[in-house]
Amino acid sequence: MPTLRRQTMGKVASLYIGKAKKQPSTRVGSLMLTFSGILGDLHCGANRPAGPREPAFRRGMTLANLRQVSLVSTEELATIASQMRLAHLDPAWLAANIATAGAGPITQIPRGTLIRFPSGASLYVSDLNSPCKAAAKLICGHAPLPQRRPSPFVPNALGRRGLVAFVYSEGQITQGDAIEFLSPHPELPDQ
Amino acid sequence: MPTLRRQTMGKVASLYIGKAKKQPSTRVGSLMLTFSGILGDLHCGANRPAGPREPAFRRGMTLANLRQVSLVSTEELATIASQMRLAHLDPAWLAANIATAGAGPITQIPRGTLIRFPSGASLYVSDLNSPCKAAAKLICGHAPLPQRRPSPFVPNALGRRGLVAFVYSEGQITQGDAIEFLSPHPELPDQ
Repeated sequence: MPTLRRQTMGKVASLYIGKAKKQPSTRVGSLMLTFSGILGDLHCGANRPAGPREPAFRRGMTLANLRQVSLVSTEELATIASQMRLAHLDPAWLAANIATAGAGPITQIPRGTLIRFPSGASLYVSDLNSPCKAAAKLICGHAPLPQRRPSPFVPNALGRRGLVAFVYSEGQITQGDAIEFLSPHPELPDQ
Repeated sequence: MPTLRRQTMGKVASLYIGKAKKQPSTRVGSLMLTFSGILGDLHCGANRPAGPREPAFRRGMTLANLRQVSLVSTEELATIASQMRLAHLDPAWLAANIATAGAGPITQIPRGTLIRFPSGASLYVSDLNSPCKAAAKLICGHAPLPQRRPSPFVPNALGRRGLVAFVYSEGQITQGDAIEFLSPHPELPDQ
């Protein structure tokens, strides 16, 4: 019995590849999604070591890489920017891979949602992304912000910092592509 | 900022390996979890072809295998059995890999929950399992049921048929092992 799906639409506003740690991602016109992640991206790999985001696992232990791709929403970035009194928050400063437009806020989209692109490429939403100090520092290095401590990024980005996902089916994605969000329809509780 | 986690406990009641399609799984004392799935199991593999459970994808298209492991709850099976007027519903008839005990109902556990075993092996819950006609048929072949059409399994198992998961970290699991369910704590909506 196939699970029913609710659908939301959006567009790929811009695409980025991460080349080095603690550096902004680099804008590109298209991305190639493989089962290991984005071809050429820093976070590409079937596995990753456990870090501070995985307190339940021994530091350095090998985990399945469910954080292959980082997505942010243009609308959510505009809200964060406005609350930080910035004219603009560049997705590259958040080391994002995909900036969406037209889908509204995406951070609260449930885990298990599938994000499908016209080529047949798709992503499985594994988690929302928590705003960390590393991103806050990266933004401070680029945005015209007073060197305030603590950074205003973390509190304002909470619940708005986008999603992490891994590749569910391979294929290319291109700027301007339509995006479908296929939500898993919850089965009714029946205990 | 690590995500907070809520914890539930249970135990591994019994373990099974799937050897052939449309056949009950075979009881074993332990399972080896690898990133491709359960060593020696029919559903082991990094990828699987899209089928009727994935109506959003072209039949046969290659997908990441998020259905490596099937879990059922002893308590939920007892409820289904009682409603079907059966003395017992064997997890093997549902082609399950892991039967849990002491954790109560598991089917409604949210996607993204991590299931951790003492060895360090863990699973990521990717979906609840829908009761399909194949399982219904398998049960009819083993349980003392009148050959009713439609089978009473599907309506009674809805919302109680357990979970599917994939391997998040490798290791062995053994009958009697403690199981921790680490629930992702939802971030508060903040739009």
